[in-house]
Amino acid sequence: MRRTRLFLPTLKETPAEAQIVSHRLMLRAGLVRQSAAGIYTWLPTGLRVLQKIAQIVREEQDRAGAQEVLMPTIQSAELWRSSGRYEDYGKEMLRITDRHDRDLLYGPTAEEVITDIVANEISSYRDLPKNLYNIQWKFRDEVRPRFGVMRGREFLMKDNYSFDLDKAGAVHSYNKMFLAYLRTYARMGLKAVPMKADTGPIGGDLSHEFIILAETGESAVFCDKSLLELDTPGDDIDYDANLQQEVDRWTRHYAATDEMHDPAKCDVAEDTLITARGIEVGHIFYFGTKYSAPLGALVQGADGRQIALEMGSYGIGVSRLVGAIIEASHDDDGIIWPESVAPWLVGLINLKVGDANCDATCEKIYAGLRAAGVEALYDDRDERAGGKFADMDLVGIPWQLTVGPRGLKGDKIEVKQRAGGEKSEIALDALVDWIAARAGA
Amino acid sequence: MRRTRLFLPTLKETPAEAQIVSHRLMLRAGLVRQSAAGIYTWLPTGLRVLQKIAQIVREEQDRAGAQEVLMPTIQSAELWRSSGRYEDYGKEMLRITDRHDRDLLYGPTAEEVITDIVANEISSYRDLPKNLYNIQWKFRDEVRPRFGVMRGREFLMKDNYSFDLDKAGAVHSYNKMFLAYLRTYARMGLKAVPMKADTGPIGGDLSHEFIILAETGESAVFCDKSLLELDTPGDDIDYDANLQQEVDRWTRHYAATDEMHDPAKCDVAEDTLITARGIEVGHIFYFGTKYSAPLGALVQGADGRQIALEMGSYGIGVSRLVGAIIEASHDDDGIIWPESVAPWLVGLINLKVGDANCDATCEKIYAGLRAAGVEALYDDRDERAGGKFADMDLVGIPWQLTVGPRGLKGDKIEVKQRAGGEKSEIALDALVDWIAARAGA
Repeated sequence: MRRTRLFLPTLKETPAEAQIVSHRLMLRAGLVRQSAAGIYTWLPTGLRVLQKIAQIVREEQDRAGAQEVLMPTIQSAELWRSSGRYEDYGKEMLRITDRHDRDLLYGPTAEEVITDIVANEISSYRDLPKNLYNIQWKFRDEVRPRFGVMRGREFLMKDNYSFDLDKAGAVHSYNKMFLAYLRTYARMGLKAVPMKADTGPIGGDLSHEFIILAETGESAVFCDKSLLELDTPGDDIDYDANLQQEVDRWTRHYAATDEMHDPAKCDVAEDTLITARGIEVGHIFYFGTKYSAPLGALVQGADGRQIALEMGSYGIGVSRLVGAIIEASHDDDGIIWPESVAPWLVGLINLKVGDANCDATCEKIYAGLRAAGVEALYDDRDERAGGKFADMDLVGIPWQLTVGPRGLKGDKIEVKQRAGGEKSEIALDALVDWIAARAGA
Repeated sequence: MRRTRLFLPTLKETPAEAQIVSHRLMLRAGLVRQSAAGIYTWLPTGLRVLQKIAQIVREEQDRAGAQEVLMPTIQSAELWRSSGRYEDYGKEMLRITDRHDRDLLYGPTAEEVITDIVANEISSYRDLPKNLYNIQWKFRDEVRPRFGVMRGREFLMKDNYSFDLDKAGAVHSYNKMFLAYLRTYARMGLKAVPMKADTGPIGGDLSHEFIILAETGESAVFCDKSLLELDTPGDDIDYDANLQQEVDRWTRHYAATDEMHDPAKCDVAEDTLITARGIEVGHIFYFGTKYSAPLGALVQGADGRQIALEMGSYGIGVSRLVGAIIEASHDDDGIIWPESVAPWLVGLINLKVGDANCDATCEKIYAGLRAAGVEALYDDRDERAGGKFADMDLVGIPWQLTVGPRGLKGDKIEVKQRAGGEKSEIALDALVDWIAARAGA
């Protein structure tokens, strides 16, 4: 993408309304703009990041055997009355009345909608297990939306729902998601720690939150240092195998949010106990028949009896992750995107627009990168170098190439890596291959 | 995908509530399920089609120089009061009050939201032109939702908005979209005819609807037969060139919807005038400063004067297209998907599950197709052949491979093409290459 064409309004000043660094940087780097309290428009650069995060979530859900569906944002109040949650949910539910005076709501989650579908469509134990996910906008009418996309009102969530015949099957489904989540976060450059959690309004008796550690985290967390050193399950993970041992490898270490932390029960030696701030980036639940029974999601078992399905639900805050990654990865100059979610892998800076050699060299590199399938942002604006360097750092482009008259005399291009700031000089002829081999590798 | 794992609830009976063929087939083929009046959940097979359609729309928008953003579904009423449309819009607007008694609405379109962003972020003529699109859910509270996704309440729309310094620029932006739309529909196997249209509540003085002809179309249309024979612009289209001549090639022929048809002005000879039914699949508008002036989207021109931006807006009904394609392409047995939007390109039918040779051969073909990057649905259910054939036709899989003990004796696989029904016998060894060369070619 050429910068002169791109809609990327960066800001030099720090917006007064932003209290935390990710919010500040998302506004300054032109990722989002607020449209109403807690409601954002994603500009091209921010949307690219959001889509990459969503795609990683999607690939790991697919790998773990979940199937993608798409539920509507607007739900019928009737379904929520069946489960008893319509009155319980309180003021965070955005309640709507349509032109025929029917009660609707903007889904804050979708247990009822999906359970209703399964109740209607699945009638035999032979159709199980099923795990259905969707990546869809949700709305929670927060009393005080803040922190940008970290606690917005309209937010993008991956939520899924597993349906099994019995508890053993449901726990296996839960374990799949437990491990799929670890893989998902790792692919985004995050170390997420699973912590036993309270089940809250979803209900149930088994639940974990996935927390990333960041100085600006919303709550205190406590965990055994060993958890940060565990290897994430690899690409060769077999989700059909028994996963309990692998899950236990994670859950046997102490880890608790503020809410669940009990110093009396914490058996971690003081020098290995991490006390830090954390950001929740996912939450998984096993809750048995809490929704299937009232909504009639029953199947006929092998012996002919009607059995209420055993369910779990699983959420990842996709839009929140954009903020969370920035909280975990930035410096004074701006965002430092992990390559897997960067809006562009490579930034190309033309130091002297109008100089025939600089222009031609940049065009050649830009075409070469595109031919090699490397996503590049080409800053072809006729502006001073300082502003261009600052923008590339602010926006957080992982690899930055600088083309200027001085370097070109020796046929060299300067390459800077955003993370760490290391600079190299690479011969022009070898540049595209060199970058293609590294960027996104 | 293995059919035994896939959530694909097909129906043998025709659902009573469905009045038109696309609605019937979308329910029968397990693409969607209604969740509330005019509100649908997309099941895995339907979602795959929806995503492919959205991706074609995206690619053609990008090719024409538009940039993707994502606006929220929930909008502030305040913005709509600025443009004067809040009161005008009537009962189709879903109006919402939040917990703080602020007026919100579910966006039926987004002229106000995007104009507000541009008003805040673009201040110089040098930042123009800009064309911003998004693919997002919209809501229109239809008094009588019907015809499935063809006239639903919550629907997926690609809407975009162009911003230019002057009318000549705006007409060029309009022309880009005019031609991009023709390309978009052609890639989905549709012949869309542009027809001069009334501008309706969007306003403005230049507008075209894109209509596909189908017996079950919602309205009568009249057009010169020549329009159906014009070549769609090719991949080599240069959107930076002057496009007027290419657009004129289309607009010089008579074409009008019922609303705009005037027999007195129709100069087409009777034997070349087509009178048919049509389905609207897109609508484009040029409306000048109707929104930019009240919302303050002004830039400083080269001479320092403040100039209100010249705007256009452009819509494609992405979810509606799923229905429209089915209306245009089906037979008594079910859907006939064009390859570009088919949920899977290839269906693999194992006629004798449990037979060692059939099972092994199917697994080998299935693995071979995946390795070749061909999307396949493998029907591995232990059910009678008739039901499996019927399901593949109902779901509309373009290429169907049948593996049975009889064929395997001669190392032959039967291949059926859904469109036309032509059958061939292909040698097992050559099968994957043969299909890979044809399917999706």
